[in-house]
Amino acid sequence: MLENYGTFGRRIRSAVLGGGASLQFYMIPANLLINKANYVSTGVWAKKALKEAKFVGNVNVIASSEDKNFNYIPQNIAVEQDADYIHFTTNNTIYGTEFKENQVPNAGKVPLISDMSSDLFALKRDFSKYSLIYAGAQKNIGPAGVTLVVIKKSLLENSRKELPSMINYQTHINDDSMFNTPPAFPIYVVGRTFKWIMKQGGLEVIEENNYKKANVLYDYMDANNDFYKPTVTSKDDRSLMNVTFNLNSPELEAKFIEEAKKRYNMTNLKGHRSVGGVRASIYNACPIEWVEALVKFMEEFKAENK
Amino acid sequence: MLENYGTFGRRIRSAVLGGGASLQFYMIPANLLINKANYVSTGVWAKKALKEAKFVGNVNVIASSEDKNFNYIPQNIAVEQDADYIHFTTNNTIYGTEFKENQVPNAGKVPLISDMSSDLFALKRDFSKYSLIYAGAQKNIGPAGVTLVVIKKSLLENSRKELPSMINYQTHINDDSMFNTPPAFPIYVVGRTFKWIMKQGGLEVIEENNYKKANVLYDYMDANNDFYKPTVTSKDDRSLMNVTFNLNSPELEAKFIEEAKKRYNMTNLKGHRSVGGVRASIYNACPIEWVEALVKFMEEFKAENK
Repeated sequence: MLENYGTFGRRIRSAVLGGGASLQFYMIPANLLINKANYVSTGVWAKKALKEAKFVGNVNVIASSEDKNFNYIPQNIAVEQDADYIHFTTNNTIYGTEFKENQVPNAGKVPLISDMSSDLFALKRDFSKYSLIYAGAQKNIGPAGVTLVVIKKSLLENSRKELPSMINYQTHINDDSMFNTPPAFPIYVVGRTFKWIMKQGGLEVIEENNYKKANVLYDYMDANNDFYKPTVTSKDDRSLMNVTFNLNSPELEAKFIEEAKKRYNMTNLKGHRSVGGVRASIYNACPIEWVEALVKFMEEFKAENK
Repeated sequence: MLENYGTFGRRIRSAVLGGGASLQFYMIPANLLINKANYVSTGVWAKKALKEAKFVGNVNVIASSEDKNFNYIPQNIAVEQDADYIHFTTNNTIYGTEFKENQVPNAGKVPLISDMSSDLFALKRDFSKYSLIYAGAQKNIGPAGVTLVVIKKSLLENSRKELPSMINYQTHINDDSMFNTPPAFPIYVVGRTFKWIMKQGGLEVIEENNYKKANVLYDYMDANNDFYKPTVTSKDDRSLMNVTFNLNSPELEAKFIEEAKKRYNMTNLKGHRSVGGVRASIYNACPIEWVEALVKFMEEFKAENK
């Protein structure tokens, strides 16, 4: 599928691995961090990736949005041209921010590496400019237990060679992702999901739907921001996958979450404990009708509690 | 379930991890190999475990059956009492050998670690004497994509503390196996399989059935060893899971495998390419009727080709 959306062609290898994105946090620096790496810190998962890299070698955090509790996407990120690679996280599930493709750091000649766990195949990207992308399956591509890793072959030319077999990307490439017994059932479902994406009309249509879905929520909140306040104020930085917002008090937020469940059985609306508030996760599998139902409830709840 | 068959009780932690047994080959020495480790080399998988340990530190191979192409279980294994641990593989799928519980090395005070990927819950064992057992699920406990690791808490007292998070057993213990999103569906099926085992009557009954199944084959071959020759001659060393044997020529073996498929749709009888011959894998899920059907075909084939 990637071939339709980039120019990787025969210059890439993809692998399906167990261990989740969390294992990639370590495998990336273990294979590729020789002198120093650049990391962008835009949330909890970005920081987790950063933490594992520090076990391996020198890391420079070249941009961060931690000063405002990660509620924006850093602009004009300057990548050090002698870095082994730059790593960033496309979508930040807890904070509701997302790098759209035009916000992605200009890496120059430095290999661009991205954790796309929470928005791979939710929108179009210029995959050709990435040297490594990875994604735990469980948001948009399949059940938990499988991780997709796509590597530009040339990336491994300067990689560390002396590594435990499972940690070494070359092992999985040599053995066609079957060095260990692969998680067969999750992989099968991923294949079915890819077919579903193609049947929808591919990423073109998927992206269009995701913008529609997210805008139903964001537009309503922007028109009602005396009551519903999106945590991400810059429209460009807002996630298509995780819409985070606050009401005027934690008590009102708790009531909102409780009533949503009681009246319409809408669950999991509570924001992550590190930010509080409300979070609506509207991944590929969530139809627009569910988003419209949420907005309907929001109108109802506002009328009763304003 | 383990509590019924050992005395681990509250002194253990179990974890479910992705990445397969192959990741454990590295995690075990990464966490536990400080000075030196003892390994027993009884087949391809035992050697793979050994190989990864050598990335970490000193390894002594204290017993091996490689001199006879791994067709026996080494006896009277002397464990170095200053080793950090001793590692062995209970069942050797390619070579058809298996440590029965009375053949397991006497580790003394050295932590006993075992890869039970291919016979965990196929027979009773004294689990209380092991410090760490692990098993990829895909033989007897569930679908590929999940690995069961059971650790005696005291084992980690002297473990290496500075490790990448995913590689560190303590991470998974602290986070109750949910540091990364666990492979939920494979875990669910493992739970169902455990219930099935209990419903059969537990390991008592499972073991009895497995002996019955294996003996149907071994007894027939021992009575017909002019034609069918078990590769493992010592009866004590023979695997309950993988019954390996030769016929009088590679051509006859090829014909046997072909006819089994053609006449009765019996597949996957070809021995591993490193040993050749024939292999019947009769894991827990294989009913005795299938084994009896194989013997019936063996009689038929012998009558036609002797």
